[in-house]
Amino acid sequence: MIKSRAAVAFEAGKPLEIVEVDVAPPQKGEVLVRIVASGVCHTDAFTLSGEDPEGIFPAILGHEGGGIVEAIGEGVTSLEVGDHVIPLYTAECRECKFCKSGKTNLCQAVRGTQGKGVMPDGTSRFSYQGKPIYHYMGCSTFSEYTVLPEISLAKIPKDAPLEKVCLLGCGVTTGIGAVLNTAKVEEGATVAIFGLGGIGLAAIIGATMAKASRIIAIDINPSKFDIARELGATDFVNPKDHDKPIQEVIVEMTDGGVDYSFECVGNVQLMRAALECAHKGWGESTIIGVAGAGQEISTRPFQLVTGRVWRGSAFGGVKGRTELPGYVAKSQSGEIPLDTFITHTMGLEDINKAFDLMHEGKSIRTVIHF
Amino acid sequence: MIKSRAAVAFEAGKPLEIVEVDVAPPQKGEVLVRIVASGVCHTDAFTLSGEDPEGIFPAILGHEGGGIVEAIGEGVTSLEVGDHVIPLYTAECRECKFCKSGKTNLCQAVRGTQGKGVMPDGTSRFSYQGKPIYHYMGCSTFSEYTVLPEISLAKIPKDAPLEKVCLLGCGVTTGIGAVLNTAKVEEGATVAIFGLGGIGLAAIIGATMAKASRIIAIDINPSKFDIARELGATDFVNPKDHDKPIQEVIVEMTDGGVDYSFECVGNVQLMRAALECAHKGWGESTIIGVAGAGQEISTRPFQLVTGRVWRGSAFGGVKGRTELPGYVAKSQSGEIPLDTFITHTMGLEDINKAFDLMHEGKSIRTVIHF
Repeated sequence: MIKSRAAVAFEAGKPLEIVEVDVAPPQKGEVLVRIVASGVCHTDAFTLSGEDPEGIFPAILGHEGGGIVEAIGEGVTSLEVGDHVIPLYTAECRECKFCKSGKTNLCQAVRGTQGKGVMPDGTSRFSYQGKPIYHYMGCSTFSEYTVLPEISLAKIPKDAPLEKVCLLGCGVTTGIGAVLNTAKVEEGATVAIFGLGGIGLAAIIGATMAKASRIIAIDINPSKFDIARELGATDFVNPKDHDKPIQEVIVEMTDGGVDYSFECVGNVQLMRAALECAHKGWGESTIIGVAGAGQEISTRPFQLVTGRVWRGSAFGGVKGRTELPGYVAKSQSGEIPLDTFITHTMGLEDINKAFDLMHEGKSIRTVIHF
Repeated sequence: MIKSRAAVAFEAGKPLEIVEVDVAPPQKGEVLVRIVASGVCHTDAFTLSGEDPEGIFPAILGHEGGGIVEAIGEGVTSLEVGDHVIPLYTAECRECKFCKSGKTNLCQAVRGTQGKGVMPDGTSRFSYQGKPIYHYMGCSTFSEYTVLPEISLAKIPKDAPLEKVCLLGCGVTTGIGAVLNTAKVEEGATVAIFGLGGIGLAAIIGATMAKASRIIAIDINPSKFDIARELGATDFVNPKDHDKPIQEVIVEMTDGGVDYSFECVGNVQLMRAALECAHKGWGESTIIGVAGAGQEISTRPFQLVTGRVWRGSAFGGVKGRTELPGYVAKSQSGEIPLDTFITHTMGLEDINKAFDLMHEGKSIRTVIHF
């Protein structure tokens, strides 16, 4: 058992509490990681709010981290003490039906237990005052020390700055990957991005990397447009400036619709708008945002029969252990400008401020430095 | 003006009336066709019922025909008198943005006027007692003589039997094309087909041609299973035999869902079931059926975010002038067994019986011989 400073979500809807928890040693196939930095993501806030049907408490949230291997359990072969790693909420076992399919990144090896807030053996490594604390998304990066399965860690070069590349553990990779891996946007294509939070801005980077000819950035908060422009967006639309449905506005400004659209908010009405602004005959719309429990998308089937395609993306279709090192390299070469996303940094003790900034729309990403 | 025997839909919900209409000569870019045979399709019945929001009356229905060029208008270069043709409700101009995209068969060259029941110049070639009768789907094959734009006719070899290959003008091509062109089912894939009417049975042929490893045929009318088996289906499910939602039944019998599913009915609940029985991570569902006016599909966005893809298909994604000759050749080689579809033949005077047989579920296709 080691002691670890952690921000614990004891109850839904309450601020996190900074306490010292106990962390049990890594078991077979597991790795103890010292977290150096962690981004604070909307998904953390979503779960903390109590709206996430999978949310369980008390838990240690956080899933966008960077750290260093502190100890390894029995049988761990791909990592050693001192390795730099990014925790993965989507594991990559390379052995399950999903990993072997060549068609998806949705490894299911640890999905069942991960969704229940425990390690693959069904128990938690965290406890506080003798009572177990749940893991979160298999990562729990809001703790100085955390334990993950070996298959849930991407090894990255030691010269990559962990307090920046931690963002590749979720939002940035999700947005870029949805454009490059899921939608496979090609050179010259037209693109519409709904929502300019971290994921939407990352999707703009993806569209820029894909050499899209036109990148339409859509948000009801026009203060996001400057940074969207900096990242490569070419057109800016505030739905509040228009009386008609936003899909009609986009269809008109693009002579029939865009080749690719991305929903980066988690709003089911916006998901419909994103589909319906895609071009007849070939337009594809990708859902990236996570909707609230029980919410449904809908449209007339005619939208699909006339050639539009509706798909979704989780972690950008990226296989973490295999592909994240490439994303890290692109961030080091400047192709993925992580600095643009980091609007605030602070210590773990101030983490509730990071949630406040996010809710107020004042931050893109706050990175917690341990 | 020539006289033509035709089955006219004077009003929604009323039987067709066999009368002698007047047909004006083909104008610039138009072709007069003598129809030799025509299938009777559910879409004709759908429009006749009055539920089709685009339906206008009086009109000459029918869109699944085979005929011979009787006369050509000014400027027609790709066809000459005596050529055998299949009318196309999806034209192929080879010049519009859609034709040139390489991504869709949905040529828009004559779409606007076609939807209004008239020729590209805005007028009808049909009249009865001096009053205009509308065209239907640009084809109107329930008339001995009809007029179409040159770009709406696929030229086929003269040795192909028109009273059989007429079925390639709609249902059979739609089902096969949805599997091969739209979904691009690959060898070894698992497939679920919802609805065993003409399109569903054709989709089974497509899946057989694609060498799918398992083809699950689903219908509430088990009398369709024998013919489905004959065409290559391997599993047979009657939703009435199960208490749980049909998507759960399919997911269980396939260890997680099928690789590809097809909705061939036009029922929005079934469209949802077809999507949700597709395999997590990669399953793709294609809507082929046409839903009633105003009806909507819905699902939880999580279904897409976890890797399912929702798409649709019109005329099987087939470019008629370019690809139909290949379908005709496959029917002549026996790869597409058209005889299996033709359960009834009759003269034009009995066409209302063909609708009755269809509504009673007793026919797959009735072919009208002129």
